[in-house]
Amino acid sequence: MSKARLETFSDGVIAILITIMVLELRTPAGTSWHALRHELPVLLAYVLSFVYLGIYWNNHHHMLAAVSRVSGATLWANLHLLFWLSLVPFSTAWMSEHHFPSVPTATYGVVLLAAAIAYYVLQSTLLRAEGDESRLRAAIGSDVKGKISPFLYCLAIGLSFVSRWIGLAVYVAVALIWLVPDRRVERHLTR
Amino acid sequence: MSKARLETFSDGVIAILITIMVLELRTPAGTSWHALRHELPVLLAYVLSFVYLGIYWNNHHHMLAAVSRVSGATLWANLHLLFWLSLVPFSTAWMSEHHFPSVPTATYGVVLLAAAIAYYVLQSTLLRAEGDESRLRAAIGSDVKGKISPFLYCLAIGLSFVSRWIGLAVYVAVALIWLVPDRRVERHLTR
Amino acid sequence: MSKARLETFSDGVIAILITIMVLELRTPAGTSWHALRHELPVLLAYVLSFVYLGIYWNNHHHMLAAVSRVSGATLWANLHLLFWLSLVPFSTAWMSEHHFPSVPTATYGVVLLAAAIAYYVLQSTLLRAEGDESRLRAAIGSDVKGKISPFLYCLAIGLSFVSRWIGLAVYVAVALIWLVPDRRVERHLTR
Amino acid sequence: MSKARLETFSDGVIAILITIMVLELRTPAGTSWHALRHELPVLLAYVLSFVYLGIYWNNHHHMLAAVSRVSGATLWANLHLLFWLSLVPFSTAWMSEHHFPSVPTATYGVVLLAAAIAYYVLQSTLLRAEGDESRLRAAIGSDVKGKISPFLYCLAIGLSFVSRWIGLAVYVAVALIWLVPDRRVERHLTR
Repeated sequence: MSKARLETFSDGVIAILITIMVLELRTPAGTSWHALRHELPVLLAYVLSFVYLGIYWNNHHHMLAAVSRVSGATLWANLHLLFWLSLVPFSTAWMSEHHFPSVPTATYGVVLLAAAIAYYVLQSTLLRAEGDESRLRAAIGSDVKGKISPFLYCLAIGLSFVSRWIGLAVYVAVALIWLVPDRRVERHLTR
Repeated sequence: MSKARLETFSDGVIAILITIMVLELRTPAGTSWHALRHELPVLLAYVLSFVYLGIYWNNHHHMLAAVSRVSGATLWANLHLLFWLSLVPFSTAWMSEHHFPSVPTATYGVVLLAAAIAYYVLQSTLLRAEGDESRLRAAIGSDVKGKISPFLYCLAIGLSFVSRWIGLAVYVAVALIWLVPDRRVERHLTR
Repeated sequence: MSKARLETFSDGVIAILITIMVLELRTPAGTSWHALRHELPVLLAYVLSFVYLGIYWNNHHHMLAAVSRVSGATLWANLHLLFWLSLVPFSTAWMSEHHFPSVPTATYGVVLLAAAIAYYVLQSTLLRAEGDESRLRAAIGSDVKGKISPFLYCLAIGLSFVSRWIGLAVYVAVALIWLVPDRRVERHLTR
Repeated sequence: MSKARLETFSDGVIAILITIMVLELRTPAGTSWHALRHELPVLLAYVLSFVYLGIYWNNHHHMLAAVSRVSGATLWANLHLLFWLSLVPFSTAWMSEHHFPSVPTATYGVVLLAAAIAYYVLQSTLLRAEGDESRLRAAIGSDVKGKISPFLYCLAIGLSFVSRWIGLAVYVAVALIWLVPDRRVERHLTR
């Protein structure tokens, strides 16, 4: 089966998710810089979630580029990932509009954790289909980032109840770890 | 005529439908776990509709993969299917925000029933164009799931007035029947 | 220049327009059939606009299929068409939520009229590039529907001030005229 | 790596941005022409932002058409551009619903300025990958428009505090400068 529609559909869903968050950016109540600054937490949370969804799209793009075929199981593993990503705008809004209380901040981490697990499941499904000698297997390598992230999310979820700012700091740190472009697949494709 | 644009457009519409439902997930009123739990019915209804739209996208993907050409009649049969699917977010919201009263729960079933019929019409339109010796004909086979679903929806609509939970249970059951991946087309394509 | 991105972008915009209208379908205030019936005008207006956008997508699909290249002028003529189509959800909502008063109903016609003119401009731009011996020229033929529609829209705009129902009836009639599938291009492509 | 998904994703995001602005067009409070006229500033701001996003899509289309490969850095430079474009609906709404006060009007310019810089960064990233002998290098030429626009945005931001109308006039002027179709790439591709 062709992977083209899987890519088109995923592109569509992630494109919508990354943009509908702006629909939740309410315009400031006044018309001064001060009114805009009051919306700053919401804007910064938007930036964080934009970066996370960008990372997922980027990695999804790289992973699929190394894949030659998709099965029915892949379609569902992919939909499962999209489901958790679809909750990112919801949890971003809940966390930011109340200025980052513990429970919503922890919930944001739960959604990120579930998305990370769903990505891992999708990757495993693809690896099973491609085989151990595949380009994808070589490209993924040791997958340190993929293995470390879930633990960092768990850490952040726990720390949210100690201090919301520590929890948030961990989320930002994980995003920065991933922002360093994942050149593994790219390198292997070029060879 | 090429089927590429039909696929792109359908992917776009279904991607939007599956994601705009999250726009209707209002953020909980408070910031406690309790406030989140209060939104649980809405979240669960979202999961159900996400799965239904995922099933439709999946089957649509499989069906179109076995098709070689599309006609003007196909375009309209496809738009007709998309119309009914577009009412899924509306009926999901109506059903879940009032915690599943009879009439909205039955209406949800009416929309699912109409979508199932529209899918059947689209399938028939494609079959007529492809012919009895086609890959699509062989791939669809006896189509037990497709034939049984409308009756289950009718059953659920009726049962919604007896007990909303029985109606909902049937909707969940039909989704589970379809979640078992439809390997028929896949199997035939591999041969 | 390739026409692929023009098609993808137009598909995206029309897919979004056709689906965001459902975001404006507010869920009924109560949970009875009566509450649903109260939303009926809004639902019927949604059906009408869904059909209109479907017609535009369909005709756009057919027209582009007969075209081999696109220029910078085409891109802008296409954006111009998309602009007017983007006002369809706005005018649909204004017209239907107040149960079809004269001015909003006439405004709906103005938007349809502007979209029809924009479509004509796009068609002319493409024809100029393709030439008189082109497949597109042959496929469009006498273009009776395209020539008669603007006059019917003007008629409907005027009649909206006499009776809203006559105005609406003309909009429905024009949609029905177009719903009869436009097999001209298809016929010529098959030859 | 293929540029197809980069184009699909960008098309998706820009298509959504250009259309979700209509979701923010609230229907007029009354049903008279007068009520519609009251929404005129909002509608005109929508037209301006629609044109700006159309210009970006158009130029993006032209630029990518002259490019043969994309790298991981390109993906992020592109996401960076999309981020700033995603703030256009937000700043348009803030500026127009209060009838163009100084601070929101200046903020609109800041978003346009940031988008212009992001576009320049993306262009530079692509140029670095393509090399000095590339089709893209030849096609971009002196890039007068690209170099002059940021200064005009800075000018408009400053002038917004003198008079909102002068600030707006500069935004309109920059849009008009770009509306003149950018035939450079096209010309070079034809050769």
